[in-house]
Amino acid sequence: MSPSPTSGQNPKGPLTIAQIADLAGVSTATVSKVVNGRSDVGAATREQIEGLIRSHGYRRQRRPTKSAALIDVLFHELRGLYAIEILNGVQEVAREHRLGVVVSEMGGRHVPGHDWVEEVLARRPLGVISVFSGLETGQSDRLYSRDIPLVLLDPTGDPDPAAPSAGASNWNGGLAAARHLTGLGHRRIAVITGPDRMEAARARLDGFRSGLDMAGVPVDPALVRHGDFEIGTGRDLAFELLRLADPPTAIFACNDGTAVGVYHAAAKLGVRIPEDLSVVGFDDLPKAKWTVPPLTTVRQPLKEMGTAAARMIVSLAAGETLPQQRVELATELVVRDSTAPLRD
Amino acid sequence: MSPSPTSGQNPKGPLTIAQIADLAGVSTATVSKVVNGRSDVGAATREQIEGLIRSHGYRRQRRPTKSAALIDVLFHELRGLYAIEILNGVQEVAREHRLGVVVSEMGGRHVPGHDWVEEVLARRPLGVISVFSGLETGQSDRLYSRDIPLVLLDPTGDPDPAAPSAGASNWNGGLAAARHLTGLGHRRIAVITGPDRMEAARARLDGFRSGLDMAGVPVDPALVRHGDFEIGTGRDLAFELLRLADPPTAIFACNDGTAVGVYHAAAKLGVRIPEDLSVVGFDDLPKAKWTVPPLTTVRQPLKEMGTAAARMIVSLAAGETLPQQRVELATELVVRDSTAPLRD
Repeated sequence: MSPSPTSGQNPKGPLTIAQIADLAGVSTATVSKVVNGRSDVGAATREQIEGLIRSHGYRRQRRPTKSAALIDVLFHELRGLYAIEILNGVQEVAREHRLGVVVSEMGGRHVPGHDWVEEVLARRPLGVISVFSGLETGQSDRLYSRDIPLVLLDPTGDPDPAAPSAGASNWNGGLAAARHLTGLGHRRIAVITGPDRMEAARARLDGFRSGLDMAGVPVDPALVRHGDFEIGTGRDLAFELLRLADPPTAIFACNDGTAVGVYHAAAKLGVRIPEDLSVVGFDDLPKAKWTVPPLTTVRQPLKEMGTAAARMIVSLAAGETLPQQRVELATELVVRDSTAPLRD
Repeated sequence: MSPSPTSGQNPKGPLTIAQIADLAGVSTATVSKVVNGRSDVGAATREQIEGLIRSHGYRRQRRPTKSAALIDVLFHELRGLYAIEILNGVQEVAREHRLGVVVSEMGGRHVPGHDWVEEVLARRPLGVISVFSGLETGQSDRLYSRDIPLVLLDPTGDPDPAAPSAGASNWNGGLAAARHLTGLGHRRIAVITGPDRMEAARARLDGFRSGLDMAGVPVDPALVRHGDFEIGTGRDLAFELLRLADPPTAIFACNDGTAVGVYHAAAKLGVRIPEDLSVVGFDDLPKAKWTVPPLTTVRQPLKEMGTAAARMIVSLAAGETLPQQRVELATELVVRDSTAPLRD
């Protein structure tokens, strides 16, 4: 890199990454990490760089070509209403800023292919939102190297722990589900979890366990079943649970799809909801209120999560510092007709 | 327009629109209509232009900037699984051709705003797919003026009758639904339609009526209810139908959402499906097999419709002539557990 023309001086106006690196005596890579909202920079260095930006301002390096008026959204897979809700949130911010939203999906894989990264680099979007999926560190580094910020939404696997992210307060949601069911008098409460590799799924289970524990209800390992957020798996695991010698009187299904599977198993076995079995879901997708009976579920604000992630991209692309690295939006229990007090 | 350098000569190699117009003695607008697959050009002129393209080949005019490796997909609204299925089809073609898919939605309006057209012109995609929505003629003309082809998917209203389109054989689907129900012995068969302004909805109703007629079953006007493809409306209209002095023993719901509404009304009134009431839907969205009981429905190949529309864009952008202006994909009745023979 050629020496900055402002080297050693006190430059006027907003600084480029090279100028900040120069003044702070660090590498441009380190400055890039700070301006792209990553957490893997020492506190003192971060503070120094943020101080320089606060007093001088920051402008993106001149790019070979200007970035396009696009936001890239990468989905693990395009299935179900989950993706639609998030897209609606992203669209809201995109309309406001007159940005196009480019949607990609990985056909069920959790790490995108080489081609995808190359296409994004060629497109030069304002930034990338990666939903329920993880870029490998090498891939996110390629984005950073071109100054394309990345925000994770419901990260899974080991995507890039340093990247900014948005999500729902999953733990509190699991807690609320457990409290609702214990409050109705249930003691034999089963749970069908989501994929173990997914942070959101683990947090829901942990919150649920804590809720039972706080209510003095023991967690019976026979009533904990490991699912994958698919309807068919929910049905199969619910079959197993409802056929136990001492079956549960309530099931916490860790997403709405799993709850639909539980409904199916119950219908086949003649188990009535909520008379014989209480069911709590998680998501509150638009379909939840249209199940028969309407589903009690933990609402996560998917649209708002999309909005939050898109706002983070717009801020980062404008050279602003994120007020927080992780935006966590509140979940809320929505009580409908699938839960009832335990019958004597 | 300055005179073409090839004026009066017989140029070698692929022709531009200006050269074709010159040779055919027509305006460039007319040539543009033919190469963009529109039908509003007289047969003789069309033949002449296609003849020139066949013998010389055709190359797109030099554009001020190259078109971006993008396909724009415009939705009426991003709700429900319908949009997801279509997007998956578009993605398949996009991956093959390494194109980004830009998704826009109009928040429920059926004609996009001025801003949207300007943004598309600035983005310069390979082409635009407009789903369940209609561009005004002035808007599509602006796209054509920049040589951006447009393909309609399930057009509604009066979008641009000249534009190429893709869709399902809705009439045949309506016919199949009626035949299935009359074959089971039903005679009191109700229908809850979709929006009257939507071609697909009208075709389903017409096919259904013809099916009843061919089976010698009279259409009782009291059993025809005008819906809008919304679950809530389906529920309300089904309530009305099931409370008639002489209620129907079967309902054809013109989309799966409406069928979910019928399930709800039936559950509230203690009407059992299929014992007391047979229900046929239309769409076969992934959720249809997960209703309780699983829904008998007319499958429309939404994913394949998305694929077909995207392939039309790729062909038009490559300067090829479409083999057909309207691609219609077959529908198919999928029999599950929501229909049963009429009980004595």
